[in-house]
Amino acid sequence: MGRITARKPVTRLTVGGEPRKTMDFLAVEEPLEIRVGGESLAITMRTPGNDFDLAAGFLVSEGVISVGDDFFGARYCAGATVEGLNTYNVLDVTLAPGVPAPDPSLARAFYTTSSCGLCGKASIDAVRTKSQHAVLHDPLVVDPALLATFPDALRAGQDVFEKTGGLHAAALFDGRTGRMLILREDVGRHNAVDKVIGWAVKENLLPLTGHVLMVSGRASFELTQKASMAGIPMMAAVSAPSSLAVDLAEELGVTIVGFLRGANMVVYSRPDRLGVPAPTSASVPVPLTSGTRQ
Amino acid sequence: MGRITARKPVTRLTVGGEPRKTMDFLAVEEPLEIRVGGESLAITMRTPGNDFDLAAGFLVSEGVISVGDDFFGARYCAGATVEGLNTYNVLDVTLAPGVPAPDPSLARAFYTTSSCGLCGKASIDAVRTKSQHAVLHDPLVVDPALLATFPDALRAGQDVFEKTGGLHAAALFDGRTGRMLILREDVGRHNAVDKVIGWAVKENLLPLTGHVLMVSGRASFELTQKASMAGIPMMAAVSAPSSLAVDLAEELGVTIVGFLRGANMVVYSRPDRLGVPAPTSASVPVPLTSGTRQ
Repeated sequence: MGRITARKPVTRLTVGGEPRKTMDFLAVEEPLEIRVGGESLAITMRTPGNDFDLAAGFLVSEGVISVGDDFFGARYCAGATVEGLNTYNVLDVTLAPGVPAPDPSLARAFYTTSSCGLCGKASIDAVRTKSQHAVLHDPLVVDPALLATFPDALRAGQDVFEKTGGLHAAALFDGRTGRMLILREDVGRHNAVDKVIGWAVKENLLPLTGHVLMVSGRASFELTQKASMAGIPMMAAVSAPSSLAVDLAEELGVTIVGFLRGANMVVYSRPDRLGVPAPTSASVPVPLTSGTRQ
Repeated sequence: MGRITARKPVTRLTVGGEPRKTMDFLAVEEPLEIRVGGESLAITMRTPGNDFDLAAGFLVSEGVISVGDDFFGARYCAGATVEGLNTYNVLDVTLAPGVPAPDPSLARAFYTTSSCGLCGKASIDAVRTKSQHAVLHDPLVVDPALLATFPDALRAGQDVFEKTGGLHAAALFDGRTGRMLILREDVGRHNAVDKVIGWAVKENLLPLTGHVLMVSGRASFELTQKASMAGIPMMAAVSAPSSLAVDLAEELGVTIVGFLRGANMVVYSRPDRLGVPAPTSASVPVPLTSGTRQ
């Protein structure tokens, strides 16, 4: 845990009381540079730990790899500083023979790949073309009573959050048995998801048919995209999704559940996977504009 | 509000109950491409609205401009799609005469500028060199009882969060009177902060000496950097800061307050701005490594 939390002196104040100097644990945030075959691809601010998984999951999200066999290995680069030290903040990934190196224009990653960026539709088209794992016809059906147990399991597994209050969590569940396969925490929720997916890459579990991705915060476009790239048919979140996350989920056939709290939940797309009949208009693509532009 | 929230059909489920089909409001998320003088600089997923402020604040964060007079104007680009439509998702900024255009290598923005990225130290050096507004000697002292009123003011101003539960908020307060000058909401908390700072650019208020930035979530390295670039001496957060945020704040002399809830708060750096004597070691730079590498 040495690099995951850092101990710092703090001052605790209560209005009207005396200040108390104590020590506190903080979630560590450090940059990780991901290289592929020696070429720099991306830099992300992350919580150190499970960096190989983070890199593997990131490469799935970017469409560079799509199954475990595509990922040959990775190593931390020595000599990353002028003093020649290994900072453990630069990771070089080796792809399996025959897997094409990422297009140099992919550098700077996600927002670049979708960065025609002129409207949500263009981004969504870019993703749909790329994903190797269609989730549209995944026959998963999850019992709502089972799904309602996931947030407690997530919170129970959040070691670092308990200590620091500073981390997002993501976990992968078996949609039929409700078993939690893996949980990861990070200062960035996209990193937590990449670490979960990267773990599955390592275990050669992709595509993640029949699984549920649970996240501690909100469900964004980016997380929906990551789920779809890994072949995950359902994402559940403690908080709200964004409009573009739901637009993308409707297009790709990902079920999004939000506000999963206690016995309650809100289903934003593909409610049939929770045993609710789909609206008759489900097969009609929803226009990917919103608000005043509709 | 048409483009800030989107109305969607959802299914509300309670374990053991009947599903209810209703309509719900979602926070809108769409890409914004920021151009400067016609050249693409960055793309961010944001909630539409106050895009000019977002662009101005982003340019402050990146060190392209540092005061209001540097920002000449901005317009949405017509013809951004093949059909020649104005999507209101591409904004072209014109800098004032004499303000240098951003270095092309700055494209892809924050993580690129700090993207030697090999360790926190390098990133922090990059920021310290760039900022035009030193906050180290800002004489602001805030009464803790006054600071404790900020979260309620923030929450009271969060129109869209009330409706969607999906937005982060950032607000700027006068550190002496406690008056809230501006509040902005966005699906990305970095965007909410950029919109606040960009509003201040427009009002020609930079540097924001004597002000407090309040954010609804956690205090990251990135937000600390944004505060320092705008000359804001104090950042308060409802949740935890990261280790690198505190490292940077110690270096630059920004006060970071976390877990500001009810009458309680935790002060992570420069507690003298809350009337607490600074530790005698305050003038000694803190090593910018953490955990096992110390």
